[in-house]
Amino acid sequence: MAKKTKQTSGKKPLILVTNDDGIYAPGIRALIEAVKDLGEVVVVAPDKPQSGMGHAITIGQPLRMSAVSLVDGVEAYQITGTPVDCVKIAVDKVLKQRPDICLSGINHGPNHSINVIYSGTMSAAVEASIESIPSIGFSLNDTSHEADFDGAQEYARVITEKILSGKWDKHLCLNVNIPAINTLEIQGIKVCKQAYAKYDEDFEERKDPAGRKYYWLTGEFVNLDKAKDTDVWALEHNYVSIVPVHFDLTNYELKKKLDKVF
Amino acid sequence: MAKKTKQTSGKKPLILVTNDDGIYAPGIRALIEAVKDLGEVVVVAPDKPQSGMGHAITIGQPLRMSAVSLVDGVEAYQITGTPVDCVKIAVDKVLKQRPDICLSGINHGPNHSINVIYSGTMSAAVEASIESIPSIGFSLNDTSHEADFDGAQEYARVITEKILSGKWDKHLCLNVNIPAINTLEIQGIKVCKQAYAKYDEDFEERKDPAGRKYYWLTGEFVNLDKAKDTDVWALEHNYVSIVPVHFDLTNYELKKKLDKVF
Repeated sequence: MAKKTKQTSGKKPLILVTNDDGIYAPGIRALIEAVKDLGEVVVVAPDKPQSGMGHAITIGQPLRMSAVSLVDGVEAYQITGTPVDCVKIAVDKVLKQRPDICLSGINHGPNHSINVIYSGTMSAAVEASIESIPSIGFSLNDTSHEADFDGAQEYARVITEKILSGKWDKHLCLNVNIPAINTLEIQGIKVCKQAYAKYDEDFEERKDPAGRKYYWLTGEFVNLDKAKDTDVWALEHNYVSIVPVHFDLTNYELKKKLDKVF
Repeated sequence: MAKKTKQTSGKKPLILVTNDDGIYAPGIRALIEAVKDLGEVVVVAPDKPQSGMGHAITIGQPLRMSAVSLVDGVEAYQITGTPVDCVKIAVDKVLKQRPDICLSGINHGPNHSINVIYSGTMSAAVEASIESIPSIGFSLNDTSHEADFDGAQEYARVITEKILSGKWDKHLCLNVNIPAINTLEIQGIKVCKQAYAKYDEDFEERKDPAGRKYYWLTGEFVNLDKAKDTDVWALEHNYVSIVPVHFDLTNYELKKKLDKVF
């Protein structure tokens, strides 16, 4: 992991944009508008909502890809697969060269704490980072389709500029969550750790017209982490949270203990 | 993370079994047979193959569940969702109490290195660990339906017994990969880290009978990690690999650097 990604001066950065809410979601359009003059933007995103798809990939059936018209002057393609599929096919089939950065979002809804694992938005960013493309996933703490992305756009642009202008590990991956409040009320940016917070599931049992049972996933989000350097804490206190994310899932502490047992 | 999971003596452990190849795959039957006399086994698994589903959950549509007859004396249910859905619904709707352990597999095919992220088998195990249920995912290094699970069964049993009889963090999660060779040739068990190895994707472009393009995900697996304490190294040298896995994706090293920038 020694190699660094650095812009060659004078050349416009190539920016891959994707999401998990689907290519026609307002959030991805807001992201494109926010960064389009920072480089050459190419969009490769799912043709339909893919929230909660985590790091799923499509195997056993092929993908379709088609060009769409989204934002003037920006090349865009919709894919029949998952957010991770989009990153894979973008790198292999769409882009002429490795992108300088991959941006995912802006997600309609937060992806703090354990949501990083369920989120298609963040899984696309993680996939880019596996492929040695620095990446940032952006999420706005408002799940509605009509969410106001103004503040999120401002911070998405600032953070993207900062990363593009610096020297970083090629596997850099950031999980950025933005409070859904007036920009003037945002207290600033906090670098955080992922909170230990989870859902207490409660499947709602119903019966269909034929009398057969079915179950809806519902549940309550519970923050079990009282630390003040977490993404949940930051959002609750009106900060933009940045959690740097990696894809080495090895639990090194437990590894030491297991070494004595096996 | 201070609480420990420990069997109350005299009480049979409750063992939740799931997988991602589907409830009728030979691998899950092999796992049930291997551990069924270690406790009370309850099976909750997908009704169809779910390989590559990663940590996907089903939102936007409900789940169906039905009892199936799989192995004599073992309660078993099939679910219309993903492996992670199976763990969630098992805990909330099927089991009378929190299971003592969750076992996932035995997967038809390896889940070493980066595959831990794509794998439904391992995502089910990770989900259990998020829910404070110690868990183990087992994978055999043979993708065929007719794979010989004898050696894998032996090691699955030994490792499950060892974990059930010890005192562990409630979030313990192990990724176990077993070489597909004669048990006598297996060199032992190695506790490892996740190798940095990935796929070099190569989407194969074809045309359907109407002349429209579609793309098959193909690719070559490349091990970029030359270390000798990785799961890929262990498997190549005929060892059973155990990688302890955690769900805190925070990159703490990068966090320190970012603290100076934001």
